[in-house]
Amino acid sequence: MEEINAVTENLHSITDSDMLLEVSSFAEDCLKNKNYRELRELVSNLQAADVAEMFIEIPESYHTVFFRLLPKELAAETFIEMEADTQRMLIESFTDLELSDILSELYIDDTVDIIEEMPAFIVKRILKSSSESDRAAINTILKYPKNSAGSLMTTEYVRFLETMDVEAALTHIRRVAIDKETIYTCYVTDRDRHLRGIITAKQLLTEELSTMLVDIMDENYIAVHTGDDREEVAHLLNKYDFMAMPVVDSEERLVGIITLDDAVDVIKEESEEDFAKMAAITPTETPYLRASVLSLWKSRIPWLLILMLSSTVSSTILTGFESVLPAVLVLFVPMIMGTGGNSGGQASVTVTRSISLSEVEFSDLFRVFWKELRVGVMCGAVLGIVTYAKVMLVDMLLLQNGDINSQVALTVALSLTVTIIAAKVIGAVLPLLAKRIGLDPAVMASPLITTLVDALSLLVYFLVSSAILTA
Amino acid sequence: MEEINAVTENLHSITDSDMLLEVSSFAEDCLKNKNYRELRELVSNLQAADVAEMFIEIPESYHTVFFRLLPKELAAETFIEMEADTQRMLIESFTDLELSDILSELYIDDTVDIIEEMPAFIVKRILKSSSESDRAAINTILKYPKNSAGSLMTTEYVRFLETMDVEAALTHIRRVAIDKETIYTCYVTDRDRHLRGIITAKQLLTEELSTMLVDIMDENYIAVHTGDDREEVAHLLNKYDFMAMPVVDSEERLVGIITLDDAVDVIKEESEEDFAKMAAITPTETPYLRASVLSLWKSRIPWLLILMLSSTVSSTILTGFESVLPAVLVLFVPMIMGTGGNSGGQASVTVTRSISLSEVEFSDLFRVFWKELRVGVMCGAVLGIVTYAKVMLVDMLLLQNGDINSQVALTVALSLTVTIIAAKVIGAVLPLLAKRIGLDPAVMASPLITTLVDALSLLVYFLVSSAILTA
Repeated sequence: MEEINAVTENLHSITDSDMLLEVSSFAEDCLKNKNYRELRELVSNLQAADVAEMFIEIPESYHTVFFRLLPKELAAETFIEMEADTQRMLIESFTDLELSDILSELYIDDTVDIIEEMPAFIVKRILKSSSESDRAAINTILKYPKNSAGSLMTTEYVRFLETMDVEAALTHIRRVAIDKETIYTCYVTDRDRHLRGIITAKQLLTEELSTMLVDIMDENYIAVHTGDDREEVAHLLNKYDFMAMPVVDSEERLVGIITLDDAVDVIKEESEEDFAKMAAITPTETPYLRASVLSLWKSRIPWLLILMLSSTVSSTILTGFESVLPAVLVLFVPMIMGTGGNSGGQASVTVTRSISLSEVEFSDLFRVFWKELRVGVMCGAVLGIVTYAKVMLVDMLLLQNGDINSQVALTVALSLTVTIIAAKVIGAVLPLLAKRIGLDPAVMASPLITTLVDALSLLVYFLVSSAILTA
Repeated sequence: MEEINAVTENLHSITDSDMLLEVSSFAEDCLKNKNYRELRELVSNLQAADVAEMFIEIPESYHTVFFRLLPKELAAETFIEMEADTQRMLIESFTDLELSDILSELYIDDTVDIIEEMPAFIVKRILKSSSESDRAAINTILKYPKNSAGSLMTTEYVRFLETMDVEAALTHIRRVAIDKETIYTCYVTDRDRHLRGIITAKQLLTEELSTMLVDIMDENYIAVHTGDDREEVAHLLNKYDFMAMPVVDSEERLVGIITLDDAVDVIKEESEEDFAKMAAITPTETPYLRASVLSLWKSRIPWLLILMLSSTVSSTILTGFESVLPAVLVLFVPMIMGTGGNSGGQASVTVTRSISLSEVEFSDLFRVFWKELRVGVMCGAVLGIVTYAKVMLVDMLLLQNGDINSQVALTVALSLTVTIIAAKVIGAVLPLLAKRIGLDPAVMASPLITTLVDALSLLVYFLVSSAILTA
């Protein structure tokens, strides 16, 4: 015990999975031995995100006791960071009073995030245990569609009236700050909540007390609408280096704000989803080491099946042509299919990420097409020439493969060039078309395009070879 | 002119590439006709990030005039957002006085970012034109290695002494805030700069003026060291939802802070780099639509060449076995190679991203191996059974392919299963090994593993088929 104590004393953060296991097993021992004082001391030095990770390692039977040990503020912050299953189990074990206590510590947007993951009877309990004003705010946010700016915003921001001066603003902040998600960007509106300008806490702290807000507020603000796409809004916050973005309704009245930390989470989540989709995996939010073997299998097997069965198309083409053409050509099939797939993959990943980052949209279709056509011709020409030289010098002269002649080399090289050009153009254009008709560009991006390009490259190969070898 | 005017009037942000072209061409007309008043009015409503994009569309010959038209603060902010080439050209056209003016408006960490992209003679000029204290701070940051926390930090933070009360802190902020990157998280140190705790502006605005800082400061802060990896630090900021992270030197003295917006840029940059590497592209920072055809070609062609030439290995294996085995087996080569590649890709992308997000490290090697082995067996079994059934039912019974019998079906199915298991394990373990020996896991992730798995799957296929068909 003494030894472990030395490890956990004055611990401020958990830096890797080994330390997590060690600290969690120490905590479990404390819970087993009812050594609550020591455990409380340990966790009170830790960050909420780390305590939430400990809950995953500690057996469920201890969760309620462990949670009740946490200092109030840390308990609320830890609750937000937990996985939905743990949250749900804890809520079920809470008394109504405990639930109200926790909810009163949470920001509205965090409560909404939790509600979105809970079954109906728990949502009811949460709404019942919230204060009346919180309940109204929660319902406001809940009514916006899942991927909208409205569903991402919080209603807890600091609002000043146009008629206030700096002193009045500071007094107002002192009164309301405790319940606001951020006080660093504040909003000036008229009596009907129409946004007029933005004031930062920095300005409030450095300007004269008698200065009118309207004289110092920034009127060149950018606002988004409740219905705007949350990913686009997240990228705007990042692009313009904002700490928060005001959200207005259809009548341009301020209804909420989106803070940078929530925008960062959207950006990260979305790029991890793209990584998963491009690798033919159904996206999940569970970190790899925590995901069960079964859940990993479930997220991977459907795509492997689909791609495997769709590769039947390539096999069928191969069967059809095999009988017609010289056997030596089969040797180059993996190279042509592979290079075509890589070429198409380069184009599709680039364009898909540009779509995700809101850098490219459907109206850029022709620009994208023209760019990839030229890149494709340049790549295709170089690889075609290299392949021609390689087949002639290595396969024919060096390895003395008697079935290979200059016609075969030309066939292979030309097929490769055409395949690369086609793969580049298809790879770049398909994600844009997918986006246009409401499909997910990332799903089109890598594996599906590879399958398509595989089939296409075989077709090209056999058309070119029939033309050249039978000429 | 009237018409364009209607478009640009009261414009606060540029939302897509078409609008950018329109606004830029309007600006170009203004510059051509020396209609500076109107142009100044237009840009003064815009955000710096948008004005920086206009510089890309407007001919270089107008850059100096256009830049001189911008209001001072906007000019500095725009300058930071520009591409290195544009910055360089502008610096060369600046007088010494203009350069000093701009530099005095910039935060130290932004100046360092610019310096890192400039040739030596411009760096000299920048250092010469900076104030003495700025120069010292710039040199401090420049001496840290490129990927360290030290190189990402800024030295412009608000520091309080332990002996101060809230009133003294507020007075201090009022005096120094204008030059500080953030005033929202402030740092309490002793006289030797040893960090003691953290105070937020929210606390300063809501606590009594006579409260001592030591009584309200948060002592459970987390600090990083100057030599720590900047990506890991960025993920810590995100994990713990911090707005800024203190950076200390080897003697635990506070030397700087890293702000959330800079951490977000690191996270984004790093994941875009991973996307590029996994698609076999050399990463660049230029957005797709702005990249020239030549630069796209340059970032793609070396990898296509390497991968194409390395696929020669697969062809050679195919050549060696082709003469020995029944021709019908060749039909299943694309399917086995493709499915193996997809299986390995799933594992490698998952593990590589987990490494990038600091979720998995080398010490987890065995845990990763064991997890993927089980996922591999489960995926391999399902796909093997499906393939056996498909070959027997579709290829043999339905399509009446006379060369196919139950031995062929067994060969194909068993080869597929073994290939999938091997691909999963290799795909997961290789990025960890790469990381361990200092190579880039992302480069190992997708295309290189595909090439490896291609060769491996052929070997497995022919070993299995020799064993079964000659038994």
